[in-house]
Amino acid sequence: MSILVVGSVALDTVETPFGRGEYILGGSATHFSIAASFFTDVSLVAVVGEDFPDAHVDFLKSRGIRTDGLERVSGGKTFHWQGRYGYDLSNPETLKTELNAFETFKPKLPKESRKSKYVFLANIDPLLQLEVLDQIESPDFVACDTMNFWIESKSQDLKRVISKVDAFIINEGEARLFAKERNLIKAVRTIQSWGPKTLIIKQGEYGALLFHGDQIFSAPGLPLEEIKDPTGAGDSFAGGFMGYLAKMTSSDVEDLRQAVIYGSVMASFNVEEFSCDRMRTLSQQDILYRYKEFQNLARF
Amino acid sequence: MSILVVGSVALDTVETPFGRGEYILGGSATHFSIAASFFTDVSLVAVVGEDFPDAHVDFLKSRGIRTDGLERVSGGKTFHWQGRYGYDLSNPETLKTELNAFETFKPKLPKESRKSKYVFLANIDPLLQLEVLDQIESPDFVACDTMNFWIESKSQDLKRVISKVDAFIINEGEARLFAKERNLIKAVRTIQSWGPKTLIIKQGEYGALLFHGDQIFSAPGLPLEEIKDPTGAGDSFAGGFMGYLAKMTSSDVEDLRQAVIYGSVMASFNVEEFSCDRMRTLSQQDILYRYKEFQNLARF
Repeated sequence: MSILVVGSVALDTVETPFGRGEYILGGSATHFSIAASFFTDVSLVAVVGEDFPDAHVDFLKSRGIRTDGLERVSGGKTFHWQGRYGYDLSNPETLKTELNAFETFKPKLPKESRKSKYVFLANIDPLLQLEVLDQIESPDFVACDTMNFWIESKSQDLKRVISKVDAFIINEGEARLFAKERNLIKAVRTIQSWGPKTLIIKQGEYGALLFHGDQIFSAPGLPLEEIKDPTGAGDSFAGGFMGYLAKMTSSDVEDLRQAVIYGSVMASFNVEEFSCDRMRTLSQQDILYRYKEFQNLARF
Repeated sequence: MSILVVGSVALDTVETPFGRGEYILGGSATHFSIAASFFTDVSLVAVVGEDFPDAHVDFLKSRGIRTDGLERVSGGKTFHWQGRYGYDLSNPETLKTELNAFETFKPKLPKESRKSKYVFLANIDPLLQLEVLDQIESPDFVACDTMNFWIESKSQDLKRVISKVDAFIINEGEARLFAKERNLIKAVRTIQSWGPKTLIIKQGEYGALLFHGDQIFSAPGLPLEEIKDPTGAGDSFAGGFMGYLAKMTSSDVEDLRQAVIYGSVMASFNVEEFSCDRMRTLSQQDILYRYKEFQNLARF
């Protein structure tokens, strides 16, 4: 089964203690679709400006990603995020956010995409996420992400979004902020009461927790010796997660557990290089091997 | 196989957002030995003052803990720690530390204890840990704990201790501090090069990592809805860990994995009530049931 993703495609300027990349390929929908493309077909809906290099579009196409929903604004510039990470490689300082082409973006789904069964609403304005949902006919499994900015500025719109999704993927701090509750389980129960049966709490280097109804699954974080650039780890996680589910045409809880591990696998690769560079050389065998590393890490 | 533990027995005054306990039973060796007593026989070597209530000694004895190595200083006062936890329930603020009877403590092992095969050196001055090690004839498996204070003030003595132990149990921040290295794997490799083949990195609510040679095992943290008092969680962890190994008369890597889970089980109970109170009503069936919760939490 193929996946539809709507989100940002960006040119990022990223600084970490291990290097710097200027105007490199980034964006939530980019990282998501590249990770998901290792599992199934992906259709990307987003917007870029005239400055967006053709080589990036060619790379997405080379991964089998459908880009007919990738709008190019003539005369416009591509969304640009600039951030800096310290030695702890978490919570980057945002130095610049230029919405550019994104400022007036109205997602229009290609006709074929309206029939999508697996849908991921990457981190964008909840109002845009709602507009996308309205255009989809009868999805089987919808997941979404968000960020602190929307939780603080558009909490009610975000609640409308998550009342319509099957799975909500956010990080730990965001869950606490959204639910206004320090205890994680209580925060999760509050958010579940607003709609989504499935919640995935990303915990950075500590892994991820899956809450599905009353069940809890804890996926370990793989300790890594070299992390060059954490940007896009969460979106790569979501890509591996949704990619696996769509490939299996499933959303049952045993497959959700596996999917969380495949998400963790893809995130662990993404951080090894700047931008999406690690994905350019990644093989199915690499994925299988790392999946086995996770099995070995968690078994007792 | 029985275990020898040397460490502190204390009267703690603890404040958390969920309550306050004044001069309640505490101390590293206390929490350790009570947790370990659910798995095997334990001999406790420590010191208290005249103010230490007989009821506490009776409780330890009721758990089958040998207290002939528990010295009582006539006219002395028991070690007292006072701390306060915020809503995140980690990194308590230390309001008071009164060494009291501990100030002049020279651990003297009862003759029988010198033949101990499983030994735990709880968090005390590394010089005292060395004195204990010198008195033990031919141990099979020695583990030790420490804290920031000793890492900062007696780093060389601590290195002598860990060069003589099989397993070193510390928390994540302490490992980074000791190795002077932000990346956890690199920090662990550095510390392993100083002696211990096995390192256990406690990560609080995120669980624990076991490093054994090149192998890594990640034990999940059980998400808990009610945490009343985290004091002694790390020592209860060590007690469950060592207790299981001593019970199995083993230190092979598969048993080390199981032992980390039993450690996590005991820590998860300990935080449910103030002091050691949860342990007063704990049953073997509770332990078995929670072990199964951990299995269910981690399987995929």
